[in-house]
Amino acid sequence: MTPFLDIDPDTGFGLENLPYGVFSTDKEPPRVGVRLGEFVVDLAVLESHGVVGVPGAGRQPVFDKGSLNAFMALGPDVWEAVRSHLQELLSTEGSPALRDAATLRQRAIVPLANVTMHLPARIGDYTDFYSSRQHATNVGTMFRGPENALMPNWLHLPVGYHGRASSVVVSGTDVVRPSGQQKPDDDAPPVFGPSKLLDIELELGFFVGPGNALGEPIPVEEASRHIFGFVLVNDWSARDIQKWEYVPLGPFLGKSFATSISPWVVPTAALAPFRVEGEPQGAEAGNPEPLPYLRQSEPRSLDVDLAVALETTAMREGGTAPEIVARSNATNLYWSPEQQLAHHTVNGCNARPGDLMASGTISGEEKGTYGSFLELTWRGSEPIDLPGGETRTFLQDGDRVVLSGEASRDGRRVGFGEVSGTIRPSRT
Amino acid sequence: MTPFLDIDPDTGFGLENLPYGVFSTDKEPPRVGVRLGEFVVDLAVLESHGVVGVPGAGRQPVFDKGSLNAFMALGPDVWEAVRSHLQELLSTEGSPALRDAATLRQRAIVPLANVTMHLPARIGDYTDFYSSRQHATNVGTMFRGPENALMPNWLHLPVGYHGRASSVVVSGTDVVRPSGQQKPDDDAPPVFGPSKLLDIELELGFFVGPGNALGEPIPVEEASRHIFGFVLVNDWSARDIQKWEYVPLGPFLGKSFATSISPWVVPTAALAPFRVEGEPQGAEAGNPEPLPYLRQSEPRSLDVDLAVALETTAMREGGTAPEIVARSNATNLYWSPEQQLAHHTVNGCNARPGDLMASGTISGEEKGTYGSFLELTWRGSEPIDLPGGETRTFLQDGDRVVLSGEASRDGRRVGFGEVSGTIRPSRT
Repeated sequence: MTPFLDIDPDTGFGLENLPYGVFSTDKEPPRVGVRLGEFVVDLAVLESHGVVGVPGAGRQPVFDKGSLNAFMALGPDVWEAVRSHLQELLSTEGSPALRDAATLRQRAIVPLANVTMHLPARIGDYTDFYSSRQHATNVGTMFRGPENALMPNWLHLPVGYHGRASSVVVSGTDVVRPSGQQKPDDDAPPVFGPSKLLDIELELGFFVGPGNALGEPIPVEEASRHIFGFVLVNDWSARDIQKWEYVPLGPFLGKSFATSISPWVVPTAALAPFRVEGEPQGAEAGNPEPLPYLRQSEPRSLDVDLAVALETTAMREGGTAPEIVARSNATNLYWSPEQQLAHHTVNGCNARPGDLMASGTISGEEKGTYGSFLELTWRGSEPIDLPGGETRTFLQDGDRVVLSGEASRDGRRVGFGEVSGTIRPSRT
Repeated sequence: MTPFLDIDPDTGFGLENLPYGVFSTDKEPPRVGVRLGEFVVDLAVLESHGVVGVPGAGRQPVFDKGSLNAFMALGPDVWEAVRSHLQELLSTEGSPALRDAATLRQRAIVPLANVTMHLPARIGDYTDFYSSRQHATNVGTMFRGPENALMPNWLHLPVGYHGRASSVVVSGTDVVRPSGQQKPDDDAPPVFGPSKLLDIELELGFFVGPGNALGEPIPVEEASRHIFGFVLVNDWSARDIQKWEYVPLGPFLGKSFATSISPWVVPTAALAPFRVEGEPQGAEAGNPEPLPYLRQSEPRSLDVDLAVALETTAMREGGTAPEIVARSNATNLYWSPEQQLAHHTVNGCNARPGDLMASGTISGEEKGTYGSFLELTWRGSEPIDLPGGETRTFLQDGDRVVLSGEASRDGRRVGFGEVSGTIRPSRT
């Protein structure tokens, strides 16, 4: 498939990807578009012209909205029909309905440089899992020693917790350094102040499609039909606040000040060629056999390369490019998105269109593959060297973090773009 | 103030209360009403007739909606103006605009028996605190022994966690017994099945009013301006699922299958006469002095009587009334709603109109005042006797639990009504 627009095939935003997002321009309010190279195709315009429609008689418009929720709710058959139709409309060899319609092209195709991106969905609930074995092992080793690193439940179920939906923000949103209670001295009372141990977490998240009614679990083999697509997630974390507050009910204010996501939702279908077998679950691999409700026959893992880059104020002012401080891959996740969703709903909990579920920090086995500064600097004991002689343990004001992701295999590339955020000083 | 409608002044639903809710009838879709005795006053009708309006030129209607969110967002000055106006309109001595308008009365005043109640708000985020010292002590004693009962952070901050918003349901909704992983035998692998330790938690919750922008905390002395009103909360809990899953990230599927709330939101203003000093916080009382951001000068506590009643299938079929198994009071909370909200936002986390924040289980000092079966039966070791010779440790299928609440002082009564739910058998 060759697009009729002039785009660089190596950017990962060709016709094989076509991620969905919500954008606005100086002239138009937020609406749904797909990204093709350095362009955004305005689906609200195409829908209003009858060039793209969702199948089903009498269907209400779904793209002239400030969120993807209505489209997410329609399910995989509709997603696939729209995706195929878009590939046909946007290719040199396909339908001329857009390609040869000069006025429509003018209205519907917008340079990426002219748009503002918004959150892709109204997120009803945000759940964060903890599905990378190496990350859980690293954190457990630091806090409880290597022999008790993994908790007894970890290999039996995808451990997760409810996150804060209100503070999920789109890439580019500044992050104000949070203040809160910390207890730096074991023998003194807690103190209040700006977090000194501000960190990131490199994660992959997915948006829920149709979802389920309360009391009606989604079986693991049907879960993929409820996964609309994927984004990069930076689960900003204040380690000092988190450490003091989290017993016994889990992370709260150490996380809820901000969670950033990338604006383009890569469709589940675009990632199908990058499905690979994950780490075996079962006795042959020395792992517990999952309980039946978690047994998945399809390949569980996604081969997506991920990177963490850091740009300090000095680097920015000196014109130095962001420095990549870690490279990881989503194959480092032990529990799959389908297993996460099946587990989440097995008690009858209802998932709704637009719910966001993130993987937890994705860390590999070597130090340069860890997805947090907590791990990369081993609790701050091993600072990272940066260009210009700077070093970092945790984040300083002015630092900008950029997470990026791309799936690449047999010459096919599917890009996630990036999620970035800059640390602003505490207000208290 | 005497209402012009014939109501029983002892029910707690007089003009001093006027709780808000969302109701529908056979003829009308969900809209906002206030309860007066055994009647509902339809505010959408009054608003459309110009009899009740929210102050502010060009204000959009807020009552012809299926949620209170738009009204909650307007803040305490508007709430107070509307409340005063309603008291005037509904009293014998006040405005005749409704009292003497026969046709309007016919349309706007609906018998409670003819309405269906709905969730009062679209809940963006639901947070559950853990603010009863006796409850935290009881649970801690059971799991860690009396010397380590309270965690070190408990007296320094209102411990809380993010709950699941999607599964918050209105009173009367059945609760399907959840299934999930449990580990009844320490030396055997986990098993999957219906929860055997199904429990309740007796809580009081509040709805957030205007809320705050991301990065801009709500100071404790301003927090009451962001608290729209209160409801009863039953935080259903599957103790066996919870026990296996909750380390280290907190409760998840042990709670997320359902949380029930009462339909009528008692306005913060209606509870002002029931504000009392809480347990002293500070050295004189042998408690840690709260950090400045948590120091509250106004009385922190609410004198609201609470009760837990249980009705088994046999009792229901035999015509036996629900048996009260516990009585508690909201003064058993150490941390106030204002402290909870100030703490929740101190890191910059944004609270939005319609967010729900619950207190955590409210337990008093004696056994009959505990707010959960876990505590009432001390982990199931001391069954409760019921009429007809039945006993209970945890909930059985068919059991109906009814939580009720009322503030009463100097002849003034403000009722919360009740929140109920019946356990249905597991589907798996």
